[in-house]
Amino acid sequence: MTGTDKLRGFIQAMTRLAEQSPEEARWLEEGGALLEALVREDDWLPDAMAEPGPGYRQYLLHCDPLERFSVVSFVWGVGARTPVHNHKVWGLVGMLRGEEVSVTMHPTPEGRMRAGQVDRLRPGEVVRVGSGEEDAHWVENALTDRPSISIHVYGGNIGAVERHSFDPETGEKRRFISGYSNEFVPNLWDRSRAA
Amino acid sequence: MTGTDKLRGFIQAMTRLAEQSPEEARWLEEGGALLEALVREDDWLPDAMAEPGPGYRQYLLHCDPLERFSVVSFVWGVGARTPVHNHKVWGLVGMLRGEEVSVTMHPTPEGRMRAGQVDRLRPGEVVRVGSGEEDAHWVENALTDRPSISIHVYGGNIGAVERHSFDPETGEKRRFISGYSNEFVPNLWDRSRAA
Ligand SMILES: [Fe+3]
Ligand SMILES: [Fe+3]
Ligand SMILES: [Mg+2]
Repeated sequence: MTGTDKLRGFIQAMTRLAEQSPEEARWLEEGGALLEALVREDDWLPDAMAEPGPGYRQYLLHCDPLERFSVVSFVWGVGARTPVHNHKVWGLVGMLRGEEVSVTMHPTPEGRMRAGQVDRLRPGEVVRVGSGEEDAHWVENALTDRPSISIHVYGGNIGAVERHSFDPETGEKRRFISGYSNEFVPNLWDRSRAA
Repeated sequence: MTGTDKLRGFIQAMTRLAEQSPEEARWLEEGGALLEALVREDDWLPDAMAEPGPGYRQYLLHCDPLERFSVVSFVWGVGARTPVHNHKVWGLVGMLRGEEVSVTMHPTPEGRMRAGQVDRLRPGEVVRVGSGEEDAHWVENALTDRPSISIHVYGGNIGAVERHSFDPETGEKRRFISGYSNEFVPNLWDRSRAA
């Protein structure tokens, strides 16, 4: 099985799940199990979707054409850290390579945000995050000597979702739409080699 | 509206049609009308998907994840001509730029194939081909001084369909799966610029 076959199989299974219009809990459970199987081995991600930048990069691997879910390769350069941000949709994070740290941030009446749960993700681990949760966090590369990569799945086209970043000193919200780092996504559909 | 928006809109409309599991006649009628609207203006195809080679190139623009249809940019270099081939699935061909000539080829009891209908396609024109038709043909760039480009839609993942090429002298069939010329397809899903 080639890397392309694995990623295509994952996307087809996620699409068949989407066709059943599942509740969020089922997306997290069944989608999470599919993502666990995908990140169990690190032998399928195209090199172009693993290229580190100075900060972090968000390479779209696949967007469902009806925008019911999207799959993104997050590549954390050395020293890369996101702003505090929210998501507005459910999410699955599967660690593929290296390690990342996520810190949940809570609003306070005084404005200044308070750090909550700290998660350190290791290769093969998957975290599930519901859309209803108060979900602001920041994420950074936990490794100081090399890039880390996690595969994210979101309950929508995350490159189109209007969401927020936060100033952790004041709690001030700012609107943003993340977009993606890549103009081209992998072609998973050439099956002439299997002939 | 950007080029990306146009192509994304076409793919979403085709996907909504696919969700209704239409009969082939409806695919050809409604899909054909959508393709006519798409090729009416030549202002949306990404340059990388319009790059000519010495022969012809087949750039996948989108494959439905459940492989119900695919959309391909066919770029005909000067002098490019396909072998005689069939398709096995329904097809829509919309001329975007330049002109192409298609020649239908019929089997004969003697082996040697007989040329039938000749179609010359001009920009904005769309041809519909049913899967049940005896559909072997060859196609060439009708222009001798510049590339031509047509947008093809097929009733399956044409890069995976097992079909045939033919020796027109003998009628001898050979199995092939075309694959695609490109390793990466356009990312149509970055909607941060619309913010
Ligand atoms: Fe996040
Ligand atoms: Fe053809
Ligand atoms: Mg190829």
